[in-house]
Amino acid sequence: MARKIGLVGFGCVAQGFYQLVVNNPLVREQIEIKRICIKHSDKPRALSEDLFTTDIDSLVTDNEIEVVVELIDDASAAWDIITTALSEGKAVVSANKKMIAENLRNLQRFPHEIQNKFHYEAAVGACIPLLKTLDNHYGYEPISKVEGIINGSTNYILGRMFADRVSFEEALGQAQDLGYAESDPKLDIEGFDASHKLSIILFHAFNQVCKPEDILRIGIDRIDSTDVDFAVKNQKTIKLTACCFRNESSIGAFCLPRFVNLTEHLGRTEDAYNAVEISSVNTDKQLLLGKGAGGEATAMAVLADVMSVLDNQQRMIKPQHGELSLNDGQEIDIYVRHQQNIDTSSFTEILDMGSAGGDQFLIGRISLKALKKSPWARHTGNSIIMI
Amino acid sequence: MARKIGLVGFGCVAQGFYQLVVNNPLVREQIEIKRICIKHSDKPRALSEDLFTTDIDSLVTDNEIEVVVELIDDASAAWDIITTALSEGKAVVSANKKMIAENLRNLQRFPHEIQNKFHYEAAVGACIPLLKTLDNHYGYEPISKVEGIINGSTNYILGRMFADRVSFEEALGQAQDLGYAESDPKLDIEGFDASHKLSIILFHAFNQVCKPEDILRIGIDRIDSTDVDFAVKNQKTIKLTACCFRNESSIGAFCLPRFVNLTEHLGRTEDAYNAVEISSVNTDKQLLLGKGAGGEATAMAVLADVMSVLDNQQRMIKPQHGELSLNDGQEIDIYVRHQQNIDTSSFTEILDMGSAGGDQFLIGRISLKALKKSPWARHTGNSIIMI
Repeated sequence: MARKIGLVGFGCVAQGFYQLVVNNPLVREQIEIKRICIKHSDKPRALSEDLFTTDIDSLVTDNEIEVVVELIDDASAAWDIITTALSEGKAVVSANKKMIAENLRNLQRFPHEIQNKFHYEAAVGACIPLLKTLDNHYGYEPISKVEGIINGSTNYILGRMFADRVSFEEALGQAQDLGYAESDPKLDIEGFDASHKLSIILFHAFNQVCKPEDILRIGIDRIDSTDVDFAVKNQKTIKLTACCFRNESSIGAFCLPRFVNLTEHLGRTEDAYNAVEISSVNTDKQLLLGKGAGGEATAMAVLADVMSVLDNQQRMIKPQHGELSLNDGQEIDIYVRHQQNIDTSSFTEILDMGSAGGDQFLIGRISLKALKKSPWARHTGNSIIMI
Repeated sequence: MARKIGLVGFGCVAQGFYQLVVNNPLVREQIEIKRICIKHSDKPRALSEDLFTTDIDSLVTDNEIEVVVELIDDASAAWDIITTALSEGKAVVSANKKMIAENLRNLQRFPHEIQNKFHYEAAVGACIPLLKTLDNHYGYEPISKVEGIINGSTNYILGRMFADRVSFEEALGQAQDLGYAESDPKLDIEGFDASHKLSIILFHAFNQVCKPEDILRIGIDRIDSTDVDFAVKNQKTIKLTACCFRNESSIGAFCLPRFVNLTEHLGRTEDAYNAVEISSVNTDKQLLLGKGAGGEATAMAVLADVMSVLDNQQRMIKPQHGELSLNDGQEIDIYVRHQQNIDTSSFTEILDMGSAGGDQFLIGRISLKALKKSPWARHTGNSIIMI
């Protein structure tokens, strides 16, 4: 008999999940969506009314339901639903990166058997099997760095700005029309979404918690055609990259736009695709690349998680040897395009200066710490791109 | 207390595995290599003699040993060791692609609980987590095609032929010096190794058995500087690719050299790296890329498997709905460089003809079946490259 699932939310990914279940006889044999909890009962729905409820308590306490699939936007409501469902002994699958990123410390305190009942592969890189790879394949392989493109809508926007030479605003509009952008575009274009996902990656790569707000974060909203011209002249493209790394006793993390060579795999990651490179002691680099957005692609990973928890798949939880310090001393090279003069004392070295379009630019070496603290770095008139 | 492992063989990968265990305190806490079975007791070894035995029976029947890690060359001896160890209730980890490919039908007949005790991720793509991704991430996602570069040494050889413009023979010599080539280079360069791995991929993608010898297979040993020039002139490179696909009721598979665009990820897969693209209904394409050869990189996947079997990790075994027929009707476009005239009646369409170097070439459309049956296709003087 098919095992019962409770679905919370009925947006784009949840509808995709529903379709994957009902359209595939092999899946229908295994699982059945018993109830869908929605917020607004008055919206017209294509499915039978009996399937829907607005009463979340009745769903999470339903004895027949083995797995709660949480796919709503509201991070704080989602955390309540998840903790209740887990305490009711149910397994939980979610794709809510903001909620997970904000609760990593709480998750880490859960006993391992509870952590094993909560899967959220789709929260990072949609259908890319990144978290299970970090958990199980790299369980005992020392990871040194994880770096990549983990936000599909900014990648789509930057792609349009290079391919069609449209403005940032026009490209953003196109991404919204295609449903690639989050309901609040600020989450994507200012790098919040990427920093949430990066916190989750850091947790699975190193079993360490780094709060999203502690991550150096600069979005793509300041990038304009002058920067695009500069990149093209230097045979580069620009990608919003997220990076976390581990040294002996410290960890570090940042989300920054970066000039990327067209010959690199990251430079060839187009449209709403995501790509993540894992560096480790014995493997050098490994790349996982796939669709980073879209209802069906994300739902596919949700379904894989549902099957995993029903099958009691364990995730290997890396040993935790106390807390590593945050390494803000790491130096990076950046390009800054500025309209007004900036204080260059925070740089350890100035590598180049010149004019670009009607603006000035400088290229210099700076520590993550100094970049975080510099007032000019927060000024939206200054475009900052890592080299 | 550390759980006991029995290691069979002490070649490049086995030595890499030994190092990963003894050099990592986190691994040493979990597992201990109790005994290593070797063939020749008279070779000098850097380790204590007590660790070694030439008596395989004592190892596979040792009650303390929970996992047998089989890393020998001899496919038939390996199969005996594995079946004995499994019947003794032990878990088994192997990287022996030839042995596995030749025994897929036998494996398929094992009860699921036995299949779950036998892991061999390192047999395909070394450290790339391909088989666990096909099993667990794509367990219920309908795969349409898996295609990629799955032989590191031929990729290295082709890379040298393009980058340094050396001859095939010289590039092969370099690959052998670096330890990338199998002990018998024929296995690599004639595509046998790739076809073994492709059979295994096909088994995990579709739970179907296709014998390696039924796979259309052409190696890279016929490729010369004329073909390299032809590729460069057309802004392409040449890669040995393996491909399997599924239609409604049929499967197909082939290993062929292929002209690949430099802008494709496969075209950018350098040195001994491997790269595999999985196409499926809801994800479009997903790419996994990593080191496809080398002792440590392969051993890393062996270690991950050992930890998985000790942790009782299940692999999702796809439902098997009878046998799909072999689809040899699929048409492909190929380039044939030939010194003597070839019978063109097997082509359904001739697309181009001309001269290349001192030879003639033609480009035409042909079915897999016709290509398999054509005598000129087996003639080593004719270079055949898929387009």
